Amino acid sequence: MDCTISSPTAIVLLCCPDQRGLVAKLANFIYANGGNIIAADHHTDTAAGVFISRIEWDLAGFNLPRDIIAPAFDSIAQPLQAQWQLHFSDTPQKVALWVTKQDHCLLDLLWRQQSCELLGEVALIISNHQLLEPIAQQFNIPYYHLPITPQNLQEQEARSLELLQEYGVHLVVLAKYMQILTPRFLAKFPAVINIHHSFLPAFAGANPYQRAYTRGVKIIGATAHYVTEDLDEGPIIEQDVVRVTHRDRVEDLIRKGKDLERMVLARAVRLHLEHRVLTYGNRTVVFS
Amino acid sequence: MDCTISSPTAIVLLCCPDQRGLVAKLANFIYANGGNIIAADHHTDTAAGVFISRIEWDLAGFNLPRDIIAPAFDSIAQPLQAQWQLHFSDTPQKVALWVTKQDHCLLDLLWRQQSCELLGEVALIISNHQLLEPIAQQFNIPYYHLPITPQNLQEQEARSLELLQEYGVHLVVLAKYMQILTPRFLAKFPAVINIHHSFLPAFAGANPYQRAYTRGVKIIGATAHYVTEDLDEGPIIEQDVVRVTHRDRVEDLIRKGKDLERMVLARAVRLHLEHRVLTYGNRTVVFS
Amino acid sequence: MDCTISSPTAIVLLCCPDQRGLVAKLANFIYANGGNIIAADHHTDTAAGVFISRIEWDLAGFNLPRDIIAPAFDSIAQPLQAQWQLHFSDTPQKVALWVTKQDHCLLDLLWRQQSCELLGEVALIISNHQLLEPIAQQFNIPYYHLPITPQNLQEQEARSLELLQEYGVHLVVLAKYMQILTPRFLAKFPAVINIHHSFLPAFAGANPYQRAYTRGVKIIGATAHYVTEDLDEGPIIEQDVVRVTHRDRVEDLIRKGKDLERMVLARAVRLHLEHRVLTYGNRTVVFS
Amino acid sequence: MDCTISSPTAIVLLCCPDQRGLVAKLANFIYANGGNIIAADHHTDTAAGVFISRIEWDLAGFNLPRDIIAPAFDSIAQPLQAQWQLHFSDTPQKVALWVTKQDHCLLDLLWRQQSCELLGEVALIISNHQLLEPIAQQFNIPYYHLPITPQNLQEQEARSLELLQEYGVHLVVLAKYMQILTPRFLAKFPAVINIHHSFLPAFAGANPYQRAYTRGVKIIGATAHYVTEDLDEGPIIEQDVVRVTHRDRVEDLIRKGKDLERMVLARAVRLHLEHRVLTYGNRTVVFS
Repeated sequence: MDCTISSPTAIVLLCCPDQRGLVAKLANFIYANGGNIIAADHHTDTAAGVFISRIEWDLAGFNLPRDIIAPAFDSIAQPLQAQWQLHFSDTPQKVALWVTKQDHCLLDLLWRQQSCELLGEVALIISNHQLLEPIAQQFNIPYYHLPITPQNLQEQEARSLELLQEYGVHLVVLAKYMQILTPRFLAKFPAVINIHHSFLPAFAGANPYQRAYTRGVKIIGATAHYVTEDLDEGPIIEQDVVRVTHRDRVEDLIRKGKDLERMVLARAVRLHLEHRVLTYGNRTVVFS
Repeated sequence: MDCTISSPTAIVLLCCPDQRGLVAKLANFIYANGGNIIAADHHTDTAAGVFISRIEWDLAGFNLPRDIIAPAFDSIAQPLQAQWQLHFSDTPQKVALWVTKQDHCLLDLLWRQQSCELLGEVALIISNHQLLEPIAQQFNIPYYHLPITPQNLQEQEARSLELLQEYGVHLVVLAKYMQILTPRFLAKFPAVINIHHSFLPAFAGANPYQRAYTRGVKIIGATAHYVTEDLDEGPIIEQDVVRVTHRDRVEDLIRKGKDLERMVLARAVRLHLEHRVLTYGNRTVVFS
Repeated sequence: MDCTISSPTAIVLLCCPDQRGLVAKLANFIYANGGNIIAADHHTDTAAGVFISRIEWDLAGFNLPRDIIAPAFDSIAQPLQAQWQLHFSDTPQKVALWVTKQDHCLLDLLWRQQSCELLGEVALIISNHQLLEPIAQQFNIPYYHLPITPQNLQEQEARSLELLQEYGVHLVVLAKYMQILTPRFLAKFPAVINIHHSFLPAFAGANPYQRAYTRGVKIIGATAHYVTEDLDEGPIIEQDVVRVTHRDRVEDLIRKGKDLERMVLARAVRLHLEHRVLTYGNRTVVFS
Repeated sequence: MDCTISSPTAIVLLCCPDQRGLVAKLANFIYANGGNIIAADHHTDTAAGVFISRIEWDLAGFNLPRDIIAPAFDSIAQPLQAQWQLHFSDTPQKVALWVTKQDHCLLDLLWRQQSCELLGEVALIISNHQLLEPIAQQFNIPYYHLPITPQNLQEQEARSLELLQEYGVHLVVLAKYMQILTPRFLAKFPAVINIHHSFLPAFAGANPYQRAYTRGVKIIGATAHYVTEDLDEGPIIEQDVVRVTHRDRVEDLIRKGKDLERMVLARAVRLHLEHRVLTYGNRTVVFS
């Protein structure tokens, strides 16, 4: 399927100390250059004194050439002490999928890419096992089998970083990658989304379904979050839940959870690739 | 409980043909007069070519006196061919609750008002039955028993309109009022929210729970909507659902539905009273 | 993956006029023959005077040979005027998937079969288009392209029935098959599950997403049901919903709906294949 | 409202080691004595080797007088090493509501009792504060103000136990009672349901809404559970959740959570009073 975007837009995500006139300044910049805003959403965290904004405007009729927009915008953003990002909707982001042995999230994301549901392109798949290589072949995506041993972790990470650079990857998605990333790796490549198979902060860590069963909960969940140094403690992007009953054994929780995992991860990846997620502190703002 | 609002704000709801510079013009108006925007949300319906906006700003430090804001804003809005409303968050809206014999929505709304959950004040209760008068007395709210007969409908409506005017009512909430309002009434008082005990458009009309049971649905719902001349066809503000099984008889559907009805109606009334709902065509935009 | 069932069970689904002693008679039959009940669920529709039961027992240690169970059970069921079915959990049911051009439900069901989530085997795929044949090849499943023209409907149906018989099919799943089955066909093969892309009975018929958008609903749904002569009126097996907002265009409803459709259809097919669904009147009892 | 039950039933809840013939033995007991089963649900936890059953039968036409049923049933249950309870649906259970200062769960339960939604009778209200006494007066229910100081806890508990005995209470409901019960108290009165304002095991302990906000979760929950010596660790009866966004401040979480709390607590109390909940280990079986 051809996923070409017919009307490309520019998107600014911005975060700065709150003050008067912010919306006016942002809107004036776009208006003064002939742009038409098609979506604008702002959030003020009054307790933290933080202003957060996402503005998207039509590039058709916008007077500034693409390579001039960033420096021009910077002259507005700098005095506001703003952190900001500029994106163009027709620049698909390159994604690396990291997997171990489970295929449900991998298949789901690949199918969504094929169906033009994701504004991104899966550039490569990395796995510490060989098992899922046939899926990569079937979708014509390079598959790198990088096994992990107690001895080679540093080397394996270095090779992964090389590959991410080589393929120009913007986002790593841990699609059931059952390994922990080191602070060293995250310092070099921080844009990583993970799916955890529980309703965080409940059942962080290993074996969440078994522990949910033992605790006798009536609802189980899944959580997609950015990866930070603290395992399962990163900013949450999306969560969802499903009911269970006393009839559900651990294997039923796992089965029901797999559906949750792929839905929640796909939504989080989609939101990120559409530049709808901004983190501040350990929280996310999701402009959906 | 004292529900005083500590930091009053001004809120503009606006709807106009889409064009360049709208966000800039609105934001500049507020900034130029020293206002600090605390919430701004915009929506463009590109298919309909309509721009819809809700902007809320702090009145502290705003340079224009309250009675000047509307005429000043109008000089911006007029050239845009905009329909707009201006509200102040510390002006509680007067609400009339219309009921018949069921008390669950009535009690729920009165309790929420007492708990300061609703930015409004229940000014009076109107009913075609005497049954719920003790509840009104308990909450110290005037109760008007206006029975309806085939002969007196026009008279009863005229009396209702008199009362709405006398009490300065902004919003009528049909909290399980089992009568149909006439086009004549709605032409004179259009701000009416109804709760329908089904997931509209399924089971519009009478006996939705019985019909849901007969159809064997696995989920039932409730719908809060603005009332228009076409029964159960008005713009939908909020809906919610709950699962049912083959074990649920009609009386169980009614019981489960009552919880839905009061939750959905309360959310819709709250959204309306916070000026978060705007209708265009037969649709609502809910800035929540 | 090898989906062998380690502890085969027998399952009886039964429906009869309510009377005293039914549970005792069923349980005694199993106990007297050395069986151990592992699940038993009964439902009495007191209004209709109908008793409905699902009993599952371990075949290990059961004294009757498999081919004797049905005649033996019949001697109990006959005097009760019962309609009943006997199934063995290790006899996988043969399923035919019927599709048109959309692949999401097809792929989802094939993935689930591969993961041993479904107690069934997809024996063949029938389509009125050629488009999805590569998926069939990839999963090594026979694909029959039976185009439909105004002239050949009767012939196409006859050929379909031949194929269902040839492959010994127990269940037809319309996995987004955008054609209507005739009463003639259904009289000969009644076990058909369809997925409708709305929350029935809302938006029965064509273009439900467009109509949901126009109506301005805040929640959309999907419904899996048995197919009867009356379009979209058959007994409902499973439904689910998802929230939408004013920001969702028709294409967003379609995208969100696709996830609903595959989840709801998969759950319904799974429930049917585990012999957990029984219909009476136009309702289902789902023993889940 | 008169909540008389027209067709009284007997209900047995039973738990015993799994073995062949259990359903037959239970059903035969009822059938042999002329009873008609109107609901029977069984569950086998194969891993734990435990059989759990709930059977309800019509008392009309049952041959055994009520006071003979228990001893007669015991002669069947004893050889099975079963733990069991016998209840009659027309014997309303006496409930004590324990509250502190928040009224939402209290009012909700009182409304439901008034509407005949609960098979129980609120016999008294106990509080460590005077604040909610007017509500008790309005519903004509005795209110005992038993303040707690560091010195008087043992005395206060003794007085509470006296009151529970005096009023013949079967169930204590902690309807936002912000105090911890001691093991000493629970040893003497173990039938206690609590509502915790989080999705347990997430945010057990104090200030769950503040901690949920800080963690940045996208969904909050509430949990009704039986109270055990381990705070927030008792068997879970019911849970539910609601979505939150970055726009929700702590006070919004509290507001949304209040609706969850009253719904979840009411459902759990209802299930308990209908004798649909059985605990084994730290888990519940809920026959709903």
